[in-house]
Amino acid sequence: MSLSPLTDRLVEALSVLPGVGKKTAQRMALYLLEHNRKGGLQLAKQLNDAMDKVGHCTQCRIHSEEPVCRICRNRSRNQSLVCVVESPADALAVEQSGGFRGVYFVLMGHLSPLDGIGPEQLGISLLVGRVAKGDIKEIIVATNPTVEGEATAHYIADSLREFAVIVSRIAHGVPVGGELEYTDGGTLNHAFSGRKRLD
Amino acid sequence: MSLSPLTDRLVEALSVLPGVGKKTAQRMALYLLEHNRKGGLQLAKQLNDAMDKVGHCTQCRIHSEEPVCRICRNRSRNQSLVCVVESPADALAVEQSGGFRGVYFVLMGHLSPLDGIGPEQLGISLLVGRVAKGDIKEIIVATNPTVEGEATAHYIADSLREFAVIVSRIAHGVPVGGELEYTDGGTLNHAFSGRKRLD
Repeated sequence: MSLSPLTDRLVEALSVLPGVGKKTAQRMALYLLEHNRKGGLQLAKQLNDAMDKVGHCTQCRIHSEEPVCRICRNRSRNQSLVCVVESPADALAVEQSGGFRGVYFVLMGHLSPLDGIGPEQLGISLLVGRVAKGDIKEIIVATNPTVEGEATAHYIADSLREFAVIVSRIAHGVPVGGELEYTDGGTLNHAFSGRKRLD
Repeated sequence: MSLSPLTDRLVEALSVLPGVGKKTAQRMALYLLEHNRKGGLQLAKQLNDAMDKVGHCTQCRIHSEEPVCRICRNRSRNQSLVCVVESPADALAVEQSGGFRGVYFVLMGHLSPLDGIGPEQLGISLLVGRVAKGDIKEIIVATNPTVEGEATAHYIADSLREFAVIVSRIAHGVPVGGELEYTDGGTLNHAFSGRKRLD
């Protein structure tokens, strides 16, 4: 069933959002029509603006409507410390943790030869180029601890072997607030091999 | 933290959607930017169209971009049988059940004097006017089985007492597929008092 052609098309358009099925899209469309038309129009405007204008930072490949993003432009950040992540969402998570004051490099994926994603697609030559300039002291590889993420991390480390740059990998172990009882074996092994002396 | 001003504004605009918090809005914005810009632009267009053009049917108050909605215009439906519901979503639910071939009347709420919602706001005079014309044989009141829904149902029945129209209320009882063990007392009471003889 359908209410009206325009509403139907709105429901269909809303279904492109991740995690939004037909039923949720219907609820969203009716909510906007009944209670928040101004919000709906504002959303339309922001969507248009963002889809049209947001590109990628030429230095770190994060989403940005300017050639160089806010973070890469920010001189109060440590521009010689680069955190390599798989996606902008990962960069956002690191940023929201509040503990990192360097800059990012976003791969926009991980090595996955079967899907045709190689070093080219991940912009690794861009990263190597930045390191070659000599301004970067340390690269922290924060790809996900999955098979592909680990492979990508090792590839990056290999690519940077010839330069005088420290390449490090974030620690894997028991999450803070986690319980040993419910931690998987792989994580526990990482936690043991990465143990630190208590001083 | 934020990625870029335009992305931030998109995240904020997406947060107006029901059930979408900051984190989900971020995920949606990044998904659209990374994977589906065309879908994002399409969504913007449909939002603009719908928010601008969709109004209410002059006969049944359902959402429609035309003065009289699809259902009220459809001559293959029983125009003398009117189902009164609280919201377009309720009409959609009835419609999707597939068993009803009459038309609707949408109250857009229920009587709630404390919120300033009286018979005026629910368009009950419009409903009475339609009944007064004499084309309607039965009104099925399908407001929600809540205190306010019941009060609204009784108010409608009272308003139509002087006319030669049947006013009925949908049955309340144990949902199909439900279990008696987990059914609340109010529903069970309804189910018992509304029992039917097995022939």
